Amino acid sequence: MKEKKSFKKIEATLNVMVSASKKASTVLGQLDSAKKDKVLRGVACELKRKTQTLIRENKKDLIQAKKDGLSSAMIDRLMLNKKRINDMAEGILHVAGMKDPIGALVKSWKRPNGLKMSRVTVSLGVILIIYESRPNVTVECATLGFKSSNAVILRGGRESYHSNKALVAIFETILKKNKLPLACVNLVPTTDRRAVDYLLKKDKEINLVIPRGGEKLIEKVVRLSRIPVVKHYKGVCHVYVDQFANLKKALAIALNAKLQRPGVCNAMEALLVHKKVAARFLPMLGEAMEKEGCVLKADKFSIKYLPQAVSAKDCDWGREFLDKVLAVKTVSSIEEAVKHIAQFGSGHTEAIMTENKEAAAIFKQCVDASSVMVNASTRFADGFEYGFGAEIGISTDKIHARGPMGLEGLTSYKYIVEGTGQIRT
Amino acid sequence: MKEKKSFKKIEATLNVMVSASKKASTVLGQLDSAKKDKVLRGVACELKRKTQTLIRENKKDLIQAKKDGLSSAMIDRLMLNKKRINDMAEGILHVAGMKDPIGALVKSWKRPNGLKMSRVTVSLGVILIIYESRPNVTVECATLGFKSSNAVILRGGRESYHSNKALVAIFETILKKNKLPLACVNLVPTTDRRAVDYLLKKDKEINLVIPRGGEKLIEKVVRLSRIPVVKHYKGVCHVYVDQFANLKKALAIALNAKLQRPGVCNAMEALLVHKKVAARFLPMLGEAMEKEGCVLKADKFSIKYLPQAVSAKDCDWGREFLDKVLAVKTVSSIEEAVKHIAQFGSGHTEAIMTENKEAAAIFKQCVDASSVMVNASTRFADGFEYGFGAEIGISTDKIHARGPMGLEGLTSYKYIVEGTGQIRT
Repeated sequence: MKEKKSFKKIEATLNVMVSASKKASTVLGQLDSAKKDKVLRGVACELKRKTQTLIRENKKDLIQAKKDGLSSAMIDRLMLNKKRINDMAEGILHVAGMKDPIGALVKSWKRPNGLKMSRVTVSLGVILIIYESRPNVTVECATLGFKSSNAVILRGGRESYHSNKALVAIFETILKKNKLPLACVNLVPTTDRRAVDYLLKKDKEINLVIPRGGEKLIEKVVRLSRIPVVKHYKGVCHVYVDQFANLKKALAIALNAKLQRPGVCNAMEALLVHKKVAARFLPMLGEAMEKEGCVLKADKFSIKYLPQAVSAKDCDWGREFLDKVLAVKTVSSIEEAVKHIAQFGSGHTEAIMTENKEAAAIFKQCVDASSVMVNASTRFADGFEYGFGAEIGISTDKIHARGPMGLEGLTSYKYIVEGTGQIRT
Repeated sequence: MKEKKSFKKIEATLNVMVSASKKASTVLGQLDSAKKDKVLRGVACELKRKTQTLIRENKKDLIQAKKDGLSSAMIDRLMLNKKRINDMAEGILHVAGMKDPIGALVKSWKRPNGLKMSRVTVSLGVILIIYESRPNVTVECATLGFKSSNAVILRGGRESYHSNKALVAIFETILKKNKLPLACVNLVPTTDRRAVDYLLKKDKEINLVIPRGGEKLIEKVVRLSRIPVVKHYKGVCHVYVDQFANLKKALAIALNAKLQRPGVCNAMEALLVHKKVAARFLPMLGEAMEKEGCVLKADKFSIKYLPQAVSAKDCDWGREFLDKVLAVKTVSSIEEAVKHIAQFGSGHTEAIMTENKEAAAIFKQCVDASSVMVNASTRFADGFEYGFGAEIGISTDKIHARGPMGLEGLTSYKYIVEGTGQIRT
């Protein structure tokens, strides 16, 4: 009963925040580029100036995290220091220097009746972003949201609550100084889990939800949300080494795709190799992967060439290991590779290694994934690497945005129709 | 209990349909343009050939509709005759003649590390379309879905079940003849209302839901769906007659926007007029609207010039009359007009009548609607009028697609990354 009553109070606070965000988004929609960039540069400057405050607030989170027994990897992700704060400031300045994604003319045309048509980019409105413990995500999302004229409601992990509060306070200082509504950048003012469930029903005020986290978080959000959700389910990326592959290149790419950062979504989880090159390629792969401490799980045919490997189980195909573990399978044709990817891939990123144009063309055409690569590492599937200058997330969905999402993914458009008195007959 | 058991059986049928659709969408994704257009021309031809069968099946629906006491307007919408069937066939041929929206290069660029990037359009996959009684919508949706390489699951009104079944059978005949999966075009094989609720949870197989119908239908779909929904809530369109308007043009446009088809979403529901021109404009408007049998609901100031009008109530602002009823209000400035529209508009279509460039610029910039018009009738907000050649619906949302949606709205994209062995460092 008491809990119920206390949530009523939180509800009231959330309602105020959501309405204020919607109002702020209208102001943001009209803001000119120069003003937006001035604010962002101000935030970057203030961030550096407040380094000590930030480190002090961050310490509160670190102390709690140690008490709660978080892993040292988690604690490292949570930690702010001078270098990381400087990097955040640099990131903001980089975004400030980018082209304004709002107000851009996408295309224009004329109708036979003389109507002049144009399609112009506009902001989405209010975006709710739900993420886990890294505090730099708070700054990234607030920056990209502001640059794209969207109000953001940020819900970081409870582990980083004090750090996030201090970071958002810096945005607030600069917003106030520039006479802009503080509700341009909002932090959900509670760690109560029910707050998110409540916000996910606010489809009249919030235009988009971006959950950045594990599969379970995203599934929960999809289940509860009435607001459109940018989905990023899994990254089960394959590298297919074709019979016409340059095996030296293929080996370098396999090592890079698996090992450069095994815990991220664009790392390779399974390698498919054409039977005709298996005898030459797999021993090299086995040796190199073993040297790097990578466990190989091989199918019946490929295990002959991989003395280091264990037998793959059925559940290893389509599995996101996020670790130094790789499934290896031989295939008899490119068609079999494409079929395997269709069945077990997650639509994130798939790569072929081949020097044969026809094989490359088949793969590019037939593989249904947000990124399809030819002779390049899956690790390139990333907004920065694609030249978007920034990344708010990667969509494994096909609606609104697919693949790495930069500022463009945070925009919508409107049609402008200019006439001289035309009526419809 | 019995009902529960019988729905288990329906569930099984729906599961088969959904899986088959997903498989069919993969085949469709690889189909070349010529083959797609050949199939569509075949359907157009078969449609004409089967005119008598269609009229016979349609009669079953008409008889039931009369028994159920449907209004004569509803019965007219439901009715198929030779002319309407010919029009459908013409519509299909028109779409067959359009450019393939799939496989188009949207843009390409090169990265400093030599990676060649391109963004290419792809189909969405499986689309569920829920609509009401007009059978021609069945043909439109199946045609646009097929042209854009998407499998469609159609759920028409129960009133037109026999007609829809006969129309889908024509697609099936031609699909079979062309050795394509019948599941490219599916009709939900039951009028049981629970079928839709069940399908809306199939977010692993269905990529998008397009409900075409009233606000209640859309709200229900949004509440129940785990699949992204194209929302078309309401069309509360305003025409603002600025102090710098050409009043003769403004009158013609007001009449057209209100009366050409009062029951549709892009009809004007409220007229705002600048005080400075009210005394000249409103008497003309009142007289002309009265002659056409249109009821005027006026605010305190404008009623002075509109002896025909009744007093507007608070609930008349933002109301979708869908009838020969118009709310009229005077405003003191363009800012007041913009503010009124922000409060009461539905984000569909808003128009300004003005000969002043600055006023037009303010309106275009500040009004947040899918279509913003200058000196043109709101009735133009339509995929055909915009030159899209076809329309699957109009989105009042900002996610994925906004405003009239043609074939382009039924596509997604993928990134193709072509390298020469690049790895990420």
